[in-house]
Amino acid sequence: MFLEKLHQIKAFVLDIDGVLTDATVHVTETGEQLRRFNVRDGYAIQLALKRGFKICAISGGKSQGALLRLNTLGMADVYLGIAKKIDTYNKFVEDHGLSPEEILYMGDDIPDLPVMKLAGVPVCPADAVEEVKEISVYISPKGGGHGCVRDVIEKVLKVQDKWFDPNPVAGDSTIVSS
Amino acid sequence: MFLEKLHQIKAFVLDIDGVLTDATVHVTETGEQLRRFNVRDGYAIQLALKRGFKICAISGGKSQGALLRLNTLGMADVYLGIAKKIDTYNKFVEDHGLSPEEILYMGDDIPDLPVMKLAGVPVCPADAVEEVKEISVYISPKGGGHGCVRDVIEKVLKVQDKWFDPNPVAGDSTIVSS
Amino acid sequence: MFLEKLHQIKAFVLDIDGVLTDATVHVTETGEQLRRFNVRDGYAIQLALKRGFKICAISGGKSQGALLRLNTLGMADVYLGIAKKIDTYNKFVEDHGLSPEEILYMGDDIPDLPVMKLAGVPVCPADAVEEVKEISVYISPKGGGHGCVRDVIEKVLKVQDKWFDPNPVAGDSTIVSS
Amino acid sequence: MFLEKLHQIKAFVLDIDGVLTDATVHVTETGEQLRRFNVRDGYAIQLALKRGFKICAISGGKSQGALLRLNTLGMADVYLGIAKKIDTYNKFVEDHGLSPEEILYMGDDIPDLPVMKLAGVPVCPADAVEEVKEISVYISPKGGGHGCVRDVIEKVLKVQDKWFDPNPVAGDSTIVSS
Repeated sequence: MFLEKLHQIKAFVLDIDGVLTDATVHVTETGEQLRRFNVRDGYAIQLALKRGFKICAISGGKSQGALLRLNTLGMADVYLGIAKKIDTYNKFVEDHGLSPEEILYMGDDIPDLPVMKLAGVPVCPADAVEEVKEISVYISPKGGGHGCVRDVIEKVLKVQDKWFDPNPVAGDSTIVSS
Repeated sequence: MFLEKLHQIKAFVLDIDGVLTDATVHVTETGEQLRRFNVRDGYAIQLALKRGFKICAISGGKSQGALLRLNTLGMADVYLGIAKKIDTYNKFVEDHGLSPEEILYMGDDIPDLPVMKLAGVPVCPADAVEEVKEISVYISPKGGGHGCVRDVIEKVLKVQDKWFDPNPVAGDSTIVSS
Repeated sequence: MFLEKLHQIKAFVLDIDGVLTDATVHVTETGEQLRRFNVRDGYAIQLALKRGFKICAISGGKSQGALLRLNTLGMADVYLGIAKKIDTYNKFVEDHGLSPEEILYMGDDIPDLPVMKLAGVPVCPADAVEEVKEISVYISPKGGGHGCVRDVIEKVLKVQDKWFDPNPVAGDSTIVSS
Repeated sequence: MFLEKLHQIKAFVLDIDGVLTDATVHVTETGEQLRRFNVRDGYAIQLALKRGFKICAISGGKSQGALLRLNTLGMADVYLGIAKKIDTYNKFVEDHGLSPEEILYMGDDIPDLPVMKLAGVPVCPADAVEEVKEISVYISPKGGGHGCVRDVIEKVLKVQDKWFDPNPVAGDSTIVSS
């Protein structure tokens, strides 16, 4: 059922906090925020982009660190400071000529609800809030920042026979540290 | 019983370390401290403030980072460097004309004990110390910094029919990174 | 048996990495190391010092951050960059006129072994290595950096009727952020 | 079977992210990345080097912090920004005149697969991805950054009667903080 739906997926739309991160921020004395990303998620994102998938991140937060991290993984569609995610989502969908059943959306909290309902395949991490779990067609056994993104990208690429890479490149090899 | 008491709650008084954070500090070589906050807690705090609840944080510590984090979530009542929490608590209660049964206090350690006993609804995170658990009317299944604040705010707003937000705003969207 | 031995304890000797911290270091791009301390440990350390106990930390590492953190908690006896812990331990014991049965030592790894054997009450965190567990008279259910120090200080103060504080001061209230 | 193979091991080849670290990066607002290393791993690395073992780290990432951390532990063979690990591995093997059965390789993700198959003893942390687990002769009960490196170094040194150190030096004592 769920796996069936993955055959048509062409794009991933992801929340940042609680999906690409573990839902926490480390705050310094000057108020700077550090976010925790998963490098195994990073490998899957790089491979999916190489395979031609579109990957978009939409966040209410304004973390420049998240932007830099995701850009170095090759993600061009990173939208920050978005209070209402639906407009951004609709523009992304339109720009790329996507239909709902071609989109997998992974969110973890209430602000994701309205937009998740528009996506053909709404999914969530193991530690998503109840309301999000209720409308998800799949709950990853992995939590936010602990591999949930890797889990769903891997599942999509596998059903489409695009996961195996005879010549894998080390996950962060394109990342240039600041 | 516990849920019954939540109907009257108008204010939340929260400890910082071990409640809004996971009871650890990351210390740099120069002694700067980083604290770890939960973004799902942040969503609930923003919504509760929007609904008119008062939220106050009282801490023995002097973390400017905590102050900045909580201010950006919209919390005005953040008191740091408070050795004896009772005076601060009493002033907050008086300023807002609150009665004990209107206050939920969440604490995790011994310094919270004297003031917790004054609140109508003393509660604690899953990893609070024994003495605090003993006087709590509710022990959240979530630990400090891992969603315990979200858990109790959500419970209060739900019994008061104030949780559902037809137009949710992404959690950290009002946060301006330093 | 174990609790019996605690009646005579006058001093705590603690390892830093893996006991006062969670055995990890976060390393920045410039090689700076961040260490993770527990604030509930901090409360117990401050109370024990107030009660007249001696608390000493001996570490092979040279973390200035650890030094600052422990100094602000009131600990004067913090020894860093100590390859052979026995000499430092012996000097501390001699300076304070302590006998073995008055000393509780908490360590987690091989470098602690020789000196642990000298202390009357050798103990360890839940995640200590096997060799250390084997010679410990007590294995805390809490891990390094997750409250193991609080656990043993609390146990000592309780058997000596020194734990209850009618006027508790918030744990980190004496800490001045850098 | 597995323990038998350890008698011949003379060198360890390790991945960094997900093996020496916990597979996450903390990202600051300016894009700087922090990585989390285990100090008990550090003790084992220092001891193995003292015993004459070769230890090599090969990473797709370019973390200067990882380089500094591993250098201060005494590791000279640290190779960063390596997209294809096989060439680096082959050069390391040739430089030190090693044969496959003398090499233990610990990896956690797809980019490790091609090179793991060359090593006599391919192993992985508890949280490695499925493909890596399938070709590993041993899966450590410890996860990446949580002692998996300590676990395998300890096992090798024990079967070779090189683990016991009558005069242990504290793990990080040679580390000079930047």
